[in-house]
Amino acid sequence: MTRVNRQVTLASRPTGLPKLSDFELVYSPLPKPGPGDVLVRAVYLSLDPEVRGQMNAAGAPARSIAIGDVMTGGAVAFVVESRDPAFAVGDAVEGNVGWQEYAVFHGHDLRKLDLALAPISTALGVLGTPGLTALFGLLDICDPKSGETVVVSGATGAIGMLVGQIARIRGCRVVGVAGAGAKVSWLVDELGFDAALSYETPEELHSQLAELCPDGIDVYFDTVGGSVTDAAMRRINARSRISVCSQSSQDSLEVPEVGPRWLGQLIVQEAKVQGFLVSGYEKRFPEGLAQLADWLRKGKIQYREEIAQGIEAAPQAFIGMLQEKNHGKQLVRLSASTTQGNLE
Amino acid sequence: MTRVNRQVTLASRPTGLPKLSDFELVYSPLPKPGPGDVLVRAVYLSLDPEVRGQMNAAGAPARSIAIGDVMTGGAVAFVVESRDPAFAVGDAVEGNVGWQEYAVFHGHDLRKLDLALAPISTALGVLGTPGLTALFGLLDICDPKSGETVVVSGATGAIGMLVGQIARIRGCRVVGVAGAGAKVSWLVDELGFDAALSYETPEELHSQLAELCPDGIDVYFDTVGGSVTDAAMRRINARSRISVCSQSSQDSLEVPEVGPRWLGQLIVQEAKVQGFLVSGYEKRFPEGLAQLADWLRKGKIQYREEIAQGIEAAPQAFIGMLQEKNHGKQLVRLSASTTQGNLE
Repeated sequence: MTRVNRQVTLASRPTGLPKLSDFELVYSPLPKPGPGDVLVRAVYLSLDPEVRGQMNAAGAPARSIAIGDVMTGGAVAFVVESRDPAFAVGDAVEGNVGWQEYAVFHGHDLRKLDLALAPISTALGVLGTPGLTALFGLLDICDPKSGETVVVSGATGAIGMLVGQIARIRGCRVVGVAGAGAKVSWLVDELGFDAALSYETPEELHSQLAELCPDGIDVYFDTVGGSVTDAAMRRINARSRISVCSQSSQDSLEVPEVGPRWLGQLIVQEAKVQGFLVSGYEKRFPEGLAQLADWLRKGKIQYREEIAQGIEAAPQAFIGMLQEKNHGKQLVRLSASTTQGNLE
Repeated sequence: MTRVNRQVTLASRPTGLPKLSDFELVYSPLPKPGPGDVLVRAVYLSLDPEVRGQMNAAGAPARSIAIGDVMTGGAVAFVVESRDPAFAVGDAVEGNVGWQEYAVFHGHDLRKLDLALAPISTALGVLGTPGLTALFGLLDICDPKSGETVVVSGATGAIGMLVGQIARIRGCRVVGVAGAGAKVSWLVDELGFDAALSYETPEELHSQLAELCPDGIDVYFDTVGGSVTDAAMRRINARSRISVCSQSSQDSLEVPEVGPRWLGQLIVQEAKVQGFLVSGYEKRFPEGLAQLADWLRKGKIQYREEIAQGIEAAPQAFIGMLQEKNHGKQLVRLSASTTQGNLE
């Protein structure tokens, strides 16, 4: 039997929200591992909002995916062939597989996973990049204190849902913000947020934020940017801290947006805005993952996943995620994935 | 002889750049000190760009001067009558006198000055709020390292000229930016800046910044905002630090300006923007003034002053300062000021 590698490639650069025709499903020969290489088969693919920015032409701040290249994304996978003595067939790993079923890696580009720790999919969420982004971006940059008000944008996403829960552990009042049409009640009912809102218009957002943050905002964790951030900036308190990990509202824009200038507000409030990449905390990943696993084990944080089935479902799931239709971490479970290994 | 107190009050709220008719010269009776009070006579009045923002109606971030009220500003002054045992007639002091010749204070609102330390006018510049703003805003917030590129906007102003020199002490490459028509060669020739530019158009600014900062910008100290800051943001390096103490370009705008969004750039560069008020460093003022005085004594920092003569000259000098026509700290020497005390 000849096995093939099904891949989703970038067919054309989207304007605004991507369309299905911007992607192509391609059948390629299985890649062959060279000396020291490892061949892996992906079981869960991570869909990440920042990939939308990478679909734009080079020149934007993010790196750009070339037309015809495989879409980028992390995945959890099993080793199916190993020419690296450090990896055995059947080992569970996490790496930048991309939107495809198989990939070849050098061993140092893979992270081995402990199947006993938690379901394997968590390596792409709470025990992976989203979890570490939420943890370091909130605690290291913003250092929230008990009783402070924390607002998080993109609250229903993989990072946002964790930011709010970690802030709750710190004793903060937490308000989650999500875009038009997003369902937010589960943030309050299931995850313990103090309040959550979605909004259709900037005016609605302003009035809802005012109502839900009567004492202003001490910490703002931003994954979205644009009008959400404009509204939050108007309500920041003295010595507030703002952590910025992505700007998903800006990635689909055909023309770069302008917005109100708020540096004057930063001065008056003696406030800080810090942009960050989670990779800047790489040395502290083991410490961060241990903390997140501990909270998870103790039931102090929960997570939700939205799981699409099959590599061919990735484009539609990705488009839905950009519209904030997902609840929690958006994954794709690859259809061949039940044939080997203990997945959950 | 009946002495009068000449004051400059706000006659009308300016739109855009203030006009002389927005101010009024008023003759008032000399204020009388109550028990525990001190009557002072100002000798140097400080003109500060941020006062432009205070001329706008309430609702702006800055506090607002009421129509008919005396314009705000610090001054160095001599005690002419004291009902506070801690102050003697002839003591030199600094306080928020406003644009007037006489004022009454509680003693705790005055800072006593050491006439032996430096010329008394420096209490409004290098050994006063501008010096402390430059020192803490640069060193505490940005922590510039030897070899890094530091850009300062409003470079010919009271704060900017000091920021550049302190960065030079730290071993940085320093580029000063000033607005259209500002003379900048003295920053290089006299103060030791590595480069300085003034610009007419944003395009000119972009190309000059690219040329003068071939290795990008590690530290940006912002006193101006608007298009200068837009240009600087495009060239910031990884892990750059941005300190923001005022936004003089925005104070005269009739309609709030919009501008490009650059939070995405902050993320990619893992950069920090910190707004601050020098009052936040109040506990460290003695330490800061000692450091500035030491550098001044050793000739490591220099300063320039632009001195207008007489309270009646304050409005025109203020308008010129807003156009960046001044070189260094803009002061007004009050005409009655030579009749008492050792002024310099």
